[in-house]
Amino acid sequence: MKKHIGNALALYPTPLVVVGAMVDGKPNWLLVGHVGIIGHDHVMVSLASAHYTNKGIKASKKLSINIVDEALLPRADRSGCVSGGKEDKSTLFDYVLDDAGVPMIQQAPVTMVCSVEDVYNTKGFESFICTIDATYAEESVLNETGKIDYRALKPVLFEMPTYEYLCTGDVIGKCMSIGKEPQK
Amino acid sequence: MKKHIGNALALYPTPLVVVGAMVDGKPNWLLVGHVGIIGHDHVMVSLASAHYTNKGIKASKKLSINIVDEALLPRADRSGCVSGGKEDKSTLFDYVLDDAGVPMIQQAPVTMVCSVEDVYNTKGFESFICTIDATYAEESVLNETGKIDYRALKPVLFEMPTYEYLCTGDVIGKCMSIGKEPQK
Repeated sequence: MKKHIGNALALYPTPLVVVGAMVDGKPNWLLVGHVGIIGHDHVMVSLASAHYTNKGIKASKKLSINIVDEALLPRADRSGCVSGGKEDKSTLFDYVLDDAGVPMIQQAPVTMVCSVEDVYNTKGFESFICTIDATYAEESVLNETGKIDYRALKPVLFEMPTYEYLCTGDVIGKCMSIGKEPQK
Repeated sequence: MKKHIGNALALYPTPLVVVGAMVDGKPNWLLVGHVGIIGHDHVMVSLASAHYTNKGIKASKKLSINIVDEALLPRADRSGCVSGGKEDKSTLFDYVLDDAGVPMIQQAPVTMVCSVEDVYNTKGFESFICTIDATYAEESVLNETGKIDYRALKPVLFEMPTYEYLCTGDVIGKCMSIGKEPQK
């Protein structure tokens, strides 16, 4: 018998990311924990409308999504503690610009460069729905077939209720395989 | 120096859920790994348009999101292996109906009952954007302040690239705290 706990948002943990975008000609970085996957080809990052970063995203229609691992976590968390409007965050990470001028964090093990296709508005928030232009990954997080090995990547995960970071754990089993075995 | 790996969707792992809905008067269940959080008050589940479940969701504008833990995983995975159009999945889980007639999985440690506010369409997919009517959780996954303790809940996580399930690991640190320490 479960207990009624109001209408708590319980869809955690989510992969923690740092969103990068050019704002007024400088790279800016923002920590984001509210993300999503739409279909098999779109990703979403949900940002409070007041964030300094949003202006740059809306002007350029481009952003980078940088996956955070444990090594990157202290600086990633820092990017969420201060606003780019108050402090220049351009030097918080070493970065490179892609051909379209999108800033990507060099220390991030995986970065997706995205084009903003749509902005979904809810009260106080702008959720950027994006297609993926290009994905870059360190060789050390790729398996022998060139796909990302999440056991090696171990993305840092976020949950809002107690505001903690969790690590990605071990593999439990293969998708669409466990269910084909006889059920107890 | 990272390697270009095409435009791979790398925003994993995500919490694995079973979406429940009434379809033609019977509960139906569908495994979903592509989910999202919009703002602080909306959740999204992204389903291929061809799924049998979508019809029921669009008729009732209600669904349940059942968080999957390791104990629930075999049956949850099973719900993704067969279509409700071909096999009656109503008996796959023990369930209860809430006041609005939304089916909830009894064995799920956490269930959110949701109202569909909008359907976001992309090619071949319907993403249901929902508000949360009520959340139910087993006492065993709540901390002393009544919030969900993800270390106790340990949701099963999903990643698409190698199609594996991962477990939620240990706590690394506190959000918006690590970054306030002096940076190396």
